Amino acid sequence: MGFATAAASRSFTPASVPLDAGTHAVRGEIAAVVNMRHAGPRPVRLRYELVGRADAPVVVLAGGISAHRHVAANAAFPEKGWAEDLVAAGRTLDPASRRILAFDFIGADGALDVPIDTADQADALALLLDHLGIAQLHCLVGYSYGALVGQQFAIRHRQRLRTLVAVSGAHRPHPYAAAWRALQRRAVALGQLQCADNLGLALARQFAMLSYRTPEEFGERFDAPPELVNGRVRVAAEDYLDAAGAQYVARTPVDAYLRLSESIDLHRIDPTDLHVPTVVVAVEGDRLVPLADCVGLVEGLGPRGSLRVLRSPYGHDAFLKETDRIDAILANAIRPLGETA
Amino acid sequence: MGFATAAASRSFTPASVPLDAGTHAVRGEIAAVVNMRHAGPRPVRLRYELVGRADAPVVVLAGGISAHRHVAANAAFPEKGWAEDLVAAGRTLDPASRRILAFDFIGADGALDVPIDTADQADALALLLDHLGIAQLHCLVGYSYGALVGQQFAIRHRQRLRTLVAVSGAHRPHPYAAAWRALQRRAVALGQLQCADNLGLALARQFAMLSYRTPEEFGERFDAPPELVNGRVRVAAEDYLDAAGAQYVARTPVDAYLRLSESIDLHRIDPTDLHVPTVVVAVEGDRLVPLADCVGLVEGLGPRGSLRVLRSPYGHDAFLKETDRIDAILANAIRPLGETA
Repeated sequence: MGFATAAASRSFTPASVPLDAGTHAVRGEIAAVVNMRHAGPRPVRLRYELVGRADAPVVVLAGGISAHRHVAANAAFPEKGWAEDLVAAGRTLDPASRRILAFDFIGADGALDVPIDTADQADALALLLDHLGIAQLHCLVGYSYGALVGQQFAIRHRQRLRTLVAVSGAHRPHPYAAAWRALQRRAVALGQLQCADNLGLALARQFAMLSYRTPEEFGERFDAPPELVNGRVRVAAEDYLDAAGAQYVARTPVDAYLRLSESIDLHRIDPTDLHVPTVVVAVEGDRLVPLADCVGLVEGLGPRGSLRVLRSPYGHDAFLKETDRIDAILANAIRPLGETA
Repeated sequence: MGFATAAASRSFTPASVPLDAGTHAVRGEIAAVVNMRHAGPRPVRLRYELVGRADAPVVVLAGGISAHRHVAANAAFPEKGWAEDLVAAGRTLDPASRRILAFDFIGADGALDVPIDTADQADALALLLDHLGIAQLHCLVGYSYGALVGQQFAIRHRQRLRTLVAVSGAHRPHPYAAAWRALQRRAVALGQLQCADNLGLALARQFAMLSYRTPEEFGERFDAPPELVNGRVRVAAEDYLDAAGAQYVARTPVDAYLRLSESIDLHRIDPTDLHVPTVVVAVEGDRLVPLADCVGLVEGLGPRGSLRVLRSPYGHDAFLKETDRIDAILANAIRPLGETA
């Protein structure tokens, strides 16, 4: 389980484990300096995982603010990843035919307590590609926050990307979703008042879960009368929400949550600046990223943009749940581009 | 501005001020004992306001958990009410042609720190009618929590109600809405833990505001980039949310909020038990009470039920905003019943 770490910028010692003929999984960590939009030059750690045949085209997969570099279990790193069903044998993102690169967002380690722009993430990714000697990405598949980072990468590093797939992320946050996140950050701040950081963070995550999912799903799963516990009403979904909060708190530094949540709200691009062919995937019923905003993004992209619409009871989380349909969209988006896999 | 108060149950000294020929406004407060579903017999104060001609048919207007007995300004009580545009000259609920009765929900004074059922509110209303010598209501117009109380009143005191108008309230809370409220109550609990009761209550109210309104409205009002204030992101809606929180905290005891919020989640009736003619008004786009749930209520009512559907960018708050359309619905619901106004 080697985590390679290098103190000096641009040097690294990756842990590389042969999986099968020609397929490798590598993790690495490098030190770099990112010139941040709102905070100036800052030292950061760039942590990545690269899986697949060394000669295959490289696809970056970037997820939501709680995603990370480990997208799927492999022989070298067998723990479950966050996109297990999408990065697998027989899928469009099959490590046997593509190299899948994923990275920890800067700030995700909680060590960067300044405003973080999606542009900063894009520049960090470019530094990482320099370091890995990857001139151009075949595709960047970004979901949620990852879609915003992908848009910035396409604008700021246009020559390094052939196609962008932006799932559940528009050119700017919807004002209602921004308000929802702002209140989540206030829950964290309320917890921090007297050293109940974890309670505040758990509550923020629980409110976030409501924005990721839909009433349809809750209606099916939690339609039971409430209980009275110690003279207080406890509704059917609270066990689920308790578990979601506890799980999140166990793996998330408070500052990472706050700064990446803010980062979504700082995002704002002009789609006419984006010149890379882009497939926008929208989910009807997404409570954070309304279909209309994805349509707005596609309209701004003009002939470079195309739209795929998915209807799912999982709302914003459809990317992680509707994996067959997402895979089919990815197959269409990625395959026709004349790759040489 | 006489507030009449009587210590003994069933006695009162109302403040009555002649408005114009035959029209009076009266406020009163009585002590009573309600046999509560989850807490047994409890002493409560019943506070009401009654406006209109003494010989006119009585309509009860009951609103959301933050509503109260003062629905509209009148000569005796000139401060603004919570349903100012619906209770006015020329409207269906014109005090010149109807007597409008409204009351403070039990628990709204913060003095009742036990689980409060919507059935308890209905029984409290029946006690109030006994006290006022009102045998039967011409109509009960209930909005949000008031619609739930109205359903219970129709079931438990069937002979005392000719018609029910239930706006934005179904036979049981939607599980998603219940989860949303449960998290609001947790925000209050987190505030209490930190000795910051007002901060917790303000945050709860702010999250509630998101459930009362719609993304469409926020999109129109708050579509501006965020600001960086003291190194933190502040989104465009936060000024509005701050004001909403402060305004609510200034007038709401914490226990009143908690117990009435719980009360919504305790509500659960069987529509087949409801035998009073009922007009159900649903708002398409209501994030708390989905149209499908109102349809479910109407289906359960059978031939006694009818449905009116409103589309509004104000979502759950449409009753308070779309007053022309609500008034038209009330005119149809109330007038054809052969009244003698």
